[in-house]
Amino acid sequence: MSHAGDWFTLRWDGDAVALLDQRRLPREEVYLRLRSVAEVAEAIERLAVRGAPAIGCTAALGAALAAATSPAVDAAGVQRDVVRALARLAATRPTAVNLFWALGRMRAGLDAAAAAPAATADSIRAALVTLACRIVEEDVAACRAIGRAGLAVIPPAARILTHCNAGALATAGYGTALGVVRAAFAAGRVASVLADETRPFLQGARLTAWELARDGIPVTVIADAMAGHLMKQGEVDVVVVGADRIAANGDVANKIGTYPLAVLAREHGLPFYVAAPLSTVDLATPDGEAIPIEERGRAELARIGETELLPDGVPVRHPAFDVTPHRLVAGIITERGIARAPYAESLPRQLEAARLEARAQAG
Amino acid sequence: MSHAGDWFTLRWDGDAVALLDQRRLPREEVYLRLRSVAEVAEAIERLAVRGAPAIGCTAALGAALAAATSPAVDAAGVQRDVVRALARLAATRPTAVNLFWALGRMRAGLDAAAAAPAATADSIRAALVTLACRIVEEDVAACRAIGRAGLAVIPPAARILTHCNAGALATAGYGTALGVVRAAFAAGRVASVLADETRPFLQGARLTAWELARDGIPVTVIADAMAGHLMKQGEVDVVVVGADRIAANGDVANKIGTYPLAVLAREHGLPFYVAAPLSTVDLATPDGEAIPIEERGRAELARIGETELLPDGVPVRHPAFDVTPHRLVAGIITERGIARAPYAESLPRQLEAARLEARAQAG
Repeated sequence: MSHAGDWFTLRWDGDAVALLDQRRLPREEVYLRLRSVAEVAEAIERLAVRGAPAIGCTAALGAALAAATSPAVDAAGVQRDVVRALARLAATRPTAVNLFWALGRMRAGLDAAAAAPAATADSIRAALVTLACRIVEEDVAACRAIGRAGLAVIPPAARILTHCNAGALATAGYGTALGVVRAAFAAGRVASVLADETRPFLQGARLTAWELARDGIPVTVIADAMAGHLMKQGEVDVVVVGADRIAANGDVANKIGTYPLAVLAREHGLPFYVAAPLSTVDLATPDGEAIPIEERGRAELARIGETELLPDGVPVRHPAFDVTPHRLVAGIITERGIARAPYAESLPRQLEAARLEARAQAG
Repeated sequence: MSHAGDWFTLRWDGDAVALLDQRRLPREEVYLRLRSVAEVAEAIERLAVRGAPAIGCTAALGAALAAATSPAVDAAGVQRDVVRALARLAATRPTAVNLFWALGRMRAGLDAAAAAPAATADSIRAALVTLACRIVEEDVAACRAIGRAGLAVIPPAARILTHCNAGALATAGYGTALGVVRAAFAAGRVASVLADETRPFLQGARLTAWELARDGIPVTVIADAMAGHLMKQGEVDVVVVGADRIAANGDVANKIGTYPLAVLAREHGLPFYVAAPLSTVDLATPDGEAIPIEERGRAELARIGETELLPDGVPVRHPAFDVTPHRLVAGIITERGIARAPYAESLPRQLEAARLEARAQAG
């Protein structure tokens, strides 16, 4: 793993997918050992694991698990089981595009392995486990590259505001927005990190606070609605957040509450950066309006622990994401550097460069 | 009381101040019967009662309680005890100016009663209890007038967004922002009320939801950070909030999270209104920068019920209020109508008219 601690977010673990159960943080560090695709899918749906890149990696491992645990004796049987798993995993969460990107890669890997001249059940199993583990490794490498690239936008003694958890816990390790924080901290540039608690699921209070404190990075938690006041008081230098899907024009879907931060950042003349691997960019989605926004249930908003917050019967709205228009985004920090407006040009350029490099490496 | 239910926020109750304990809502309706100034002051500090007008009314009742329960046998002794009570009550919370306004009225009432030719301990007691009860009654009347005035800015089938609780529970009854909601609902103009849950103390989820549901007004709770998304989706028509202090230039201190709403409302071309009695206007405070912002402790942010949200040792910031600059305020709805910019002219005009009317009534 690529953070300082003795913990991990997710990994391939023999014939299982191992995950740190993020619902139980920060009070308990409990690892789940998932032995079936159904368990992996439920872990994603029920937020045992969350964060766009981590969801993608987990889904890839889930597809590998389908192959590894398939009872089929021939290649066609394994192939059938993996295809069924891909469909199940794709139905878990709609907004983060990394899920579909990772499943697409697993599908391509499956097709290639099945089309190989001497394909067997075992050769497909081995190919998919290898590919999923590569996706996981690449995610960590991308996060480290994002961290290095992001250094360019972090001033000395920076007070960095972030939302939700775009950290090691949202990726295979190191993090995207928190990858930038980690790199900047290592470079001696971080005075403090302000973490929005991020209602309703409290990823900031529970997860960002946990992983930064664990790495010795100074973090202070605020309620989401305090960010505007602190910006107005001059207590924030830069905003860095993650992303669940970036449309072709640079519009960014991210955890609900991101869009207000971007509006407030502009109001106060503060730069608003998005940090995400290129697997988060979806050129097939023209703009933010085309991004499906997941609506989740009442319970996550209405209850914390054993405490019912709301009167019985009072309804809630629970959009889990919002869309920040590209005009509010100062730059998108990816593993290939900082994409700037116009994003409709800079993002395809980065993707093409990544594609050419991958092809050169493969060749 | 001026709401539909069989409950009340606060009242004089013989030799005690009776309060609905707002910390236990919405799950339990428990009334506190406070027998000493110390108990009243603690109830204010610990948020058993909150909301600028309700704090003012409670403090007035607390001063009356000091007189009523004073063991002194002569006028000077009662006067001493009340003066001591006024100082204790003034030290409870710094931001809401209604507290100081109500205590100022009680001090003037005390001085007048003590200066009367045949002043006795009992005549002072009677005068202060009468005055405190009048302040409570005037607050309800002011809220009803605010409701009537506010009708002018609520369109048909309005979807009204509000923050915190500026309702019957924040006043002696009926409410300020929710007074506008109640009047508009009675006029058939309310399609829905969106209530920010209002972290950290959850006044929206717990109190606004409770009192509106109890009156049969349709209310939906959202996390604070969802307001921007819903505005962007076209699901909000108007924003109405209360106030804890309004400076001479029209800058408004209100519950933390109000300022971001005002910025977002302007971003979406939505009118942002403040509803408050004139007792909330403080001409001695020139602008928002001069308003003291209370910082409260870690526990209210870090724990809900029995659940610790944060890792041990991670600090928080907890400003309890923010300031919305007057340029973002479409109008201030008071018991004398809607004050518009320039507020430095409209607010003193309303205050002077109220002063003249009070003098005419007294004469």
